[in-house]
Amino acid sequence: MPLGEEKNGMCDGSIYVNNPHLDSMQEDILYHFNLGTSTHDLPKMFMDVKFVCVGGSPWRMKAFTEYIAKELGLMDPNAEYPNICAGTDRYAMYKVGPVLCVSHGMGIPSIAIMLHELIKLLYHARCTDVTLVRIGTSGGIGIKPGTVVVTKQSVDAMFQPRHEQIILGKPVMRSTELDGELANDLLQCGKELAEFETIIGNTMCTLDFYEGQARLDGAFCSYSEDDKQHYLAEAYAAGVRNIEMESSVFAAMCKLSNIRAAVVCVTLLDRQKGDQLTSSHEVLNNYQQRPQVLLGHYIKKQLNVSKSS
Amino acid sequence: MPLGEEKNGMCDGSIYVNNPHLDSMQEDILYHFNLGTSTHDLPKMFMDVKFVCVGGSPWRMKAFTEYIAKELGLMDPNAEYPNICAGTDRYAMYKVGPVLCVSHGMGIPSIAIMLHELIKLLYHARCTDVTLVRIGTSGGIGIKPGTVVVTKQSVDAMFQPRHEQIILGKPVMRSTELDGELANDLLQCGKELAEFETIIGNTMCTLDFYEGQARLDGAFCSYSEDDKQHYLAEAYAAGVRNIEMESSVFAAMCKLSNIRAAVVCVTLLDRQKGDQLTSSHEVLNNYQQRPQVLLGHYIKKQLNVSKSS
Repeated sequence: MPLGEEKNGMCDGSIYVNNPHLDSMQEDILYHFNLGTSTHDLPKMFMDVKFVCVGGSPWRMKAFTEYIAKELGLMDPNAEYPNICAGTDRYAMYKVGPVLCVSHGMGIPSIAIMLHELIKLLYHARCTDVTLVRIGTSGGIGIKPGTVVVTKQSVDAMFQPRHEQIILGKPVMRSTELDGELANDLLQCGKELAEFETIIGNTMCTLDFYEGQARLDGAFCSYSEDDKQHYLAEAYAAGVRNIEMESSVFAAMCKLSNIRAAVVCVTLLDRQKGDQLTSSHEVLNNYQQRPQVLLGHYIKKQLNVSKSS
Repeated sequence: MPLGEEKNGMCDGSIYVNNPHLDSMQEDILYHFNLGTSTHDLPKMFMDVKFVCVGGSPWRMKAFTEYIAKELGLMDPNAEYPNICAGTDRYAMYKVGPVLCVSHGMGIPSIAIMLHELIKLLYHARCTDVTLVRIGTSGGIGIKPGTVVVTKQSVDAMFQPRHEQIILGKPVMRSTELDGELANDLLQCGKELAEFETIIGNTMCTLDFYEGQARLDGAFCSYSEDDKQHYLAEAYAAGVRNIEMESSVFAAMCKLSNIRAAVVCVTLLDRQKGDQLTSSHEVLNNYQQRPQVLLGHYIKKQLNVSKSS
């Protein structure tokens, strides 16, 4: 199969691995999870997974696990949710019923390593009809801090809906198309909750938090406040409502694997008004819970859980 | 100052921030460290720092802190080394005497966020004559697993000594030149220790662990074993002896900040012979201690600590 003509997902709900080498391997070690096909019974551990929630921070993934357990009525007051990846400090993973939560660190390379191993894990475990949602934080453009943005398109720093993957030293462009129906369902959940503003918009994904996002407060800055404002205004005109650092490769890899995927990020500040995160910890913590609440509501609806415990 | 003509480091040993905006800020919040100029007395906390050791894994940074404390005779048997960034799970930071240890997660974006905030921290703390060393793990090419590679040049996936930084949507190329004298001093330390092989060579820095490093065992693979071997042979011919995911931006940012910097990574496998990390935990753990031992020896020599406690 020539580069650039990669096969997209199929329609039968199974996880697709675009790798003919995998089936001839006697064993597959998922190194950064400290899991493997010889050492763990992956189908037994994971076959019932229907929802995977990923986010940068391990603490937030643990918090979401506890939250969703309570919301789904699966909470055992005596239960601890063990970190399934306890043997490594690269990622943290928790599971409660059909919901798997995995941290991914910061940036495209970090989430890409995790997604390669997660996609193989779901494939080895023979999971079907999996929905994968990234919940995260972001900087907003022209919207009120605390607004939750469901991503319509993930775009790069030139506002194009593509992810550049270097393979054997050559760039390959991949589509960052996400599932439109899932995005609309999540937007609808935000409206039903009516606890905070939820909008749909494009999300810009950058390789850097400071210069890559036109911040003026990094260790280096070679542009002016006017240059910054001009760039952010161009982004807004291209439909960008928030900026983060993982959505493009997340969208590209989920699309290649036939996984229904969405990105839901809260904005912690309005970048047109500043660069630093000056809000109090209480305010920022409250904001960070919003994508969790929204995703929790969606999962409950899908599972027909009528009310929270 | 036009893009691409950025000023390089000065010669007086101070940390250089290439950002005219910084001095006009009333306060600087180092968000991902949970530190700030208003909330913390950064000169008091950090002014004596002379060596900064960074690495991907927080556990390894804690281990190095304990190791170097013992080696420098600064160990208090009753002392715990508190995580200075305990209020966040993004990075971990430990300090013992003149040595600061900071984790950086995986990949260029993750280490770049940390380095922006570390460089500003060292600047605010008025540190001088700081040496910054990344210790890490890597895949080797054509060398025995367990070999420690001191980086001569950090090169990209096309084997060029450059780091592409996107600023306001446009690519800016930065030099990844490291300090040649420091690299030679570290190589010499390896020879003095004579506990494991230490070599000097080029290090390829990629944005991805699987497709980006020509692995055959990711969730996607569109090339053959022959294609992989051809690419690795090309890399070897260009002087590349190991592959990791942070050295290019590390080298570029240290150069811009006038910080003497080096990269010391152990190889966990020979990529020409395989892709998976099949060695036992004991063997891999032993390998991972080697850059720590080498850096510890170097720091002791610099501080004229004659023998370990």
